[in-house]
Parts: sequence; structure tokens; C-alpha cells
Amino acid sequence: MATAKISSKSKKSKDVLLYASPNNSADMRWFTKFSCGDAFIAFTAKGKKIAAITLLEIVRFRKESGFDVVLDLGAELAKLRETNPSANMPELIAYFAKKYKVSSWSVPADFPAGLFVKLHQLGVKLSVGATPFFPQRVIKTEEELEMIRAGNRASCAGFKAVEKILKESKIDKKGFLNYQGKTLTSEILRAAIEHACLDAGGINVEGLIAAAGDQGVDCHCSGFGPIRANELIVCDIFPRIAATGYFGDMTRTYLKGKASPEQRALVAAVKKAHDKAIAAVRAGVPGYDIYKGTVEFFAESGYKTGVVDGVPTGFFHGLGHGVGLDVHEAPNLGGRSVMTEPLRENMVVTIEPGLYYPGIGGCRIEDVVVVRKDGCELLSKHPYKWEIA
Amino acid sequence: MATAKISSKSKKSKDVLLYASPNNSADMRWFTKFSCGDAFIAFTAKGKKIAAITLLEIVRFRKESGFDVVLDLGAELAKLRETNPSANMPELIAYFAKKYKVSSWSVPADFPAGLFVKLHQLGVKLSVGATPFFPQRVIKTEEELEMIRAGNRASCAGFKAVEKILKESKIDKKGFLNYQGKTLTSEILRAAIEHACLDAGGINVEGLIAAAGDQGVDCHCSGFGPIRANELIVCDIFPRIAATGYFGDMTRTYLKGKASPEQRALVAAVKKAHDKAIAAVRAGVPGYDIYKGTVEFFAESGYKTGVVDGVPTGFFHGLGHGVGLDVHEAPNLGGRSVMTEPLRENMVVTIEPGLYYPGIGGCRIEDVVVVRKDGCELLSKHPYKWEIA
Repeated sequence: MATAKISSKSKKSKDVLLYASPNNSADMRWFTKFSCGDAFIAFTAKGKKIAAITLLEIVRFRKESGFDVVLDLGAELAKLRETNPSANMPELIAYFAKKYKVSSWSVPADFPAGLFVKLHQLGVKLSVGATPFFPQRVIKTEEELEMIRAGNRASCAGFKAVEKILKESKIDKKGFLNYQGKTLTSEILRAAIEHACLDAGGINVEGLIAAAGDQGVDCHCSGFGPIRANELIVCDIFPRIAATGYFGDMTRTYLKGKASPEQRALVAAVKKAHDKAIAAVRAGVPGYDIYKGTVEFFAESGYKTGVVDGVPTGFFHGLGHGVGLDVHEAPNLGGRSVMTEPLRENMVVTIEPGLYYPGIGGCRIEDVVVVRKDGCELLSKHPYKWEIA
Repeated sequence: MATAKISSKSKKSKDVLLYASPNNSADMRWFTKFSCGDAFIAFTAKGKKIAAITLLEIVRFRKESGFDVVLDLGAELAKLRETNPSANMPELIAYFAKKYKVSSWSVPADFPAGLFVKLHQLGVKLSVGATPFFPQRVIKTEEELEMIRAGNRASCAGFKAVEKILKESKIDKKGFLNYQGKTLTSEILRAAIEHACLDAGGINVEGLIAAAGDQGVDCHCSGFGPIRANELIVCDIFPRIAATGYFGDMTRTYLKGKASPEQRALVAAVKKAHDKAIAAVRAGVPGYDIYKGTVEFFAESGYKTGVVDGVPTGFFHGLGHGVGLDVHEAPNLGGRSVMTEPLRENMVVTIEPGLYYPGIGGCRIEDVVVVRKDGCELLSKHPYKWEIA
């Protein structure tokens, strides 16, 4: 049973206020350990965790959240309206501030501005907290690592589905792939990935990528239409596990048929960059240094980065990002020294170098690692075999 | 080709500013006609729609959004940083305000408070707009109606999967349902629904409900564990169509075996309430009146509503809500005169009366209608047969 006391160790042990849906806000989900689609009120006061939530969710919330005080949002509003018929969320929160003697609350940067302004008008003292709002979220527990591993296992289920289809596909006379008598498309691949992720407990696969040829060069293009033989096929799969809310995030690049020397060199360079970056990860190293290492390695290997005819080419994205209840969260191994602090033990990051050139195609290889004292440990495990005969 | 001029007909033709991910913000998706996971800047100035978006999305955004000016977010930031190395999103937006001579922007109520406060400090004039932020979203176009119909077709695919499983299930000696040699569970039903929705183009099915017996009384419980014969099974399916972002939202209640007289009366009362509510929908009628009609019908029929031993029973939720790019949006046919205005032509609402009593179970029947001048038109179509032998 969670006692749910707010740690008094934190230097600024400020009270916090959140108003969000846990399915849309990773902070809210982390804070409440609860999943639902509608927004509700959650805050701390005098070392207690307090929520006001609709009657529709209250039974489940009491069971699952471990909160100290769980109030019926509708009933609390109804009480207020006896004296103030136009009372709504801001008035209710202002009432809670008085009732629980909160002098000021820290709210997350993505707290709704409308509510922020109204609370300010009602005299409730608020300040916007730092980002990340709960710095504890950046350092994962062993339990969270296992949840992220489960997310990556769902990604792997997707890769297995892709590999099976590519193996069973034939190459037709026009050079297109043919699967079970039909021209293979990105849509068919994505549907197979989605079904496989679902069976592995994953949801929320909007935006997953199975993009071939020059479509794979636009590194957020989901891919569409027929797939040809001898094209690089970038598959980026980031399912969220329904039961926990934690994401997996992995990328593999495939090719059905026979690769050209340029494609082979490209994939080899990306794989080498991937190996080198993973070897460089350990507690104490600034994430930006690892990114810079990848940039330098590609440059030394003759792979130029820049915008050519309006199209970004080369290695134009970050090397990685944190993963957890958000698919993109802190820390950042990005293209600017955004993250000047060193990596810390039990941070979780993706390592995903990539190279993209129209005419050759795109290649990205992405795994997830947890930062350890003397190195890192893979939280994702899937072979790198990419050329499928 | 969208000319994308901001309508000058609106009384307050204020410029707007949004900073959100279109996959998380229906307003952003509606405004940009674009789907992606990361937040970016979109605003109006001098009758033009302007966005600043990462290089990773820019090619696709230029193709899909119809915006007048599409800027490279990274390049714009880099320019600013030549003179102000710590420049970030707030400084960039402040720069745009000057460059495009915007005197003030209206932002949605869910605009991030952190950015709001920083922009204020930088002297950018902002005001929080009304909710809904884009009132035009409430009145659906014929194209949007078709997208909502597609969402409901995905829901129906889910119902068909459930009906097939229930038909093929046997009742074992202990009274549990047995499907293909295994005890049937809510999890098996939900997985079948999810696969069926996927095949119909749906995603994002977090929270969908297949809850039996007393679990169905907790009307947001997703359901878990074995399902018995002769229990009411509430199936609430609200898939989002991946290609468009529009939701379907339908509920049917089933029972495998033989219903008790109490269950039969309960289902008949809900169906009658559903028919009566649909018959009452037409342009000009306040949504609250239709809700009140349902409350009165249930009361007259002897179905009491109230909290019994801490459990809400009877008809304790709203009668319906708008559906579109959000699964819950305006207008509200709720339990309070939140929506005092009359329904207007081409608004889309769910009609979903329900009754819930421990021991008997829960029953909800939900369809989606579009409000017309003299009545309404169903945007969802699926039989109401519920007792499966």
C-alpha cells in the first residue's frame, strides 16, 4: 500500500497542482499512477496527495492511485454552487487552496493557460515549475525499465511481422514486391505491425513508420503506396503498452532483394555509428558529446549533412531522446547542447543514428539503453539482419 | 487548393496563436489539417496562416496543410541565436509577433501556461480565447460527417467481432463462457475489437470497454477477467480513424445465454429512452432539455438514480456529447445546464442513455446523430439485437 507522502528530501519541496488527463499528460499519469481519458484535479498539500475526480472514475481511482484523499468532483462542485451558482473548476481549485491551506502551488509548463489565468484572478498563487516537472521521472526504477523492455518487445513483434512478409514476398516483373498475390505496400506493412503490437499489449501506434525508398529520406513520413525491390525500408515502431503507459521505441531498416554498394556502405556506416554511440554511453558523459561524436564520425566517413534542393540530407536529426511515459522525454541527445548536464545512472535514452540521401534512401537503426555507471545496458533486443533475399 | 484566408466575417476576427501537437490537440489538428506527434508553432497574422515547424515535418506540412507561410523552426531559432544564444520558443514567438506586426493573439484555454507566462514577460500581448476556441468546429461539414461515419463503421466492426465470438462461445459447467476451448475474458473481447477496428482504419482505442456483470456498472471500467453466461456485457467502442483524426463512438450491450426479467426490463427501458431522445433531437432544442427528458422517463419508469453504498446507480452520467476530432467535445447533453444554447444544425452528438445496478448489471446504448432542421440523422448504424443464445 502506497503511503504516498511527498518526499521532504527535495530542496524545494513545493506543493504541486495538476489538471490534465493522464492519457494525454505523462506527468499526470506518473503522479496518479492512473489511466483515463478525461482531465481531473490532482495536487499535494501538507504532505498528502489529493484528487478530485468524476464519480465515473472514483471507484477505480481509489483502488489504483494510492492517493490519500479522493474527492467526488461533481459533489464538491455542487456544494460550491449552493452559494455560487456559476462556480466551476477555477473556483473549486481556489476553494481547495483555502481548505487545505496551500500558500502556493507549482504547476507544470503545460498546465492550461486558461485555468492559470482564472486562478490568478481568484488570488491563487501559482508558479510554473521547471521542465521536467518531476525530475524523478528522468531516473527510471527497475520496475519502469521492465515496462520499457515490454514496450520494446512489442516493437520487436512488429519487426518479426515485417521480416516474415518480406521473406515471403516475391519480386514481380516491374520490380515491385508481391505478397500473397498483391503488390506489397507501406500500408500493408503498417497494418501487420499494428496487429503484432496489439497482440504484444501495445496501443497508440499513430505515426509509426514503414517508409521505403525516398519516402524513408523524409524521416517522419509514415510511408504509403507500393514498395519496390532493392529499396531501403525504414521501420520505426514505438508502441505504448496499454497496461502501464510506457513506450518502446526501436527502428530497423530492411531491404528486399539485393542492395547496391552505396546502400551497403550507408547501412554499414549507420551500424558503426550506432555501435560507437552505445559504447560511449555511461554515467557522467554529457549527452551532447555523444551526439557530437556521431556527427564527427559521419563527417569523417564522407557523409555530408545539409539541405540540398530544400531536402534535409545526411544526419539531420538528434542522436536520441529519453523514453518512458512519453515517447520523447528528457534527456535529449540532440543537435544542440540543450542537455549540458552529464547523463546519470538509470536514465533511459534511444540511440538512433541515421543517414538519408535521395536516390540511395534512408537508414536508421534505433535501440533503447539504460545508462549505467560504467556503460549502458540494452533495453531492446532484435537482430540487425537487414538484407532479405 | 486551400486559399486559407481567415474569415473576416467573425465579429472578433482576432489573430490566433497555437503551440501544440496536432495528435494531442484537436484545435491544432483542425487548424493545420496536419497530423504529427511533436508540438510546433501555428498562428495567423494579416489574414495569413503561418507555421514554424521542424525540418523533419516541413516537406509533408507544406504538402498537406495549405498554410500560406511555412518556416523552418530550427533555422529561425538558429538565426535568433546568433544575437541571443539562449533564445528559445518564447523568444521566437516574440520575434514573429514583431516581424508580422501582430498586436495581440488569442490562445486556446489549453495553451501551455509556461509559454504563456514567458511570452507575457517578453511583452507579447495574449488573451485566452473562449471554449470552444474554434466555434466552427462544432458545426460539421458534410465531409466531416462522412469522417465520423467512418469512425462509427470502425466501431461496428468491433461489434461484429464481439457478436461472432459470443455466438460461437459455449457455456461451461460453471456458467462461464468458453470460446475456442478457453474461458472467454474481457481481454479476449477487447483484443478482438481492437484488431477489427484496426482493419477498419481505426487507432487509439485506449480505454475501450468490454465489461460484464457488475464491472459494467462502473461505467468507465474497461473490464477484466472471465465472462459468465447471462451477464450484461457493455461494449463501448470509440476508435479514431488514423487518416483523418475523426472519432466514432458507439455502445451496444450484449448478453450470452438467457436474460432475467429484470435484465430484459432494464434493456427495454434504455432502448426506449434512446428512441425517445433521438426523436427529441432537432435544431433549436436545448441539449439540456433532452437530457432532462431522459431523466424524467427513467424516474417515471421506476429506475432510481443515486449513490448506494458508495456506488453510483441508475442514470448517473450525461446523455451525450459532441464527437469530432475529440471523442468528447462540445456540445454537451450533460447533467447540468452547461449547454444552455439550443442545438444547431449540423452539430454532432452521441445519444447514450444507460442504467446501472449492481446485481442486474449495466446497459448503455449509444449512437451518433447529426442535428438537422426538423430532427436528426443517424451517423451510426448497427442492429440492437443483444440477447445471444
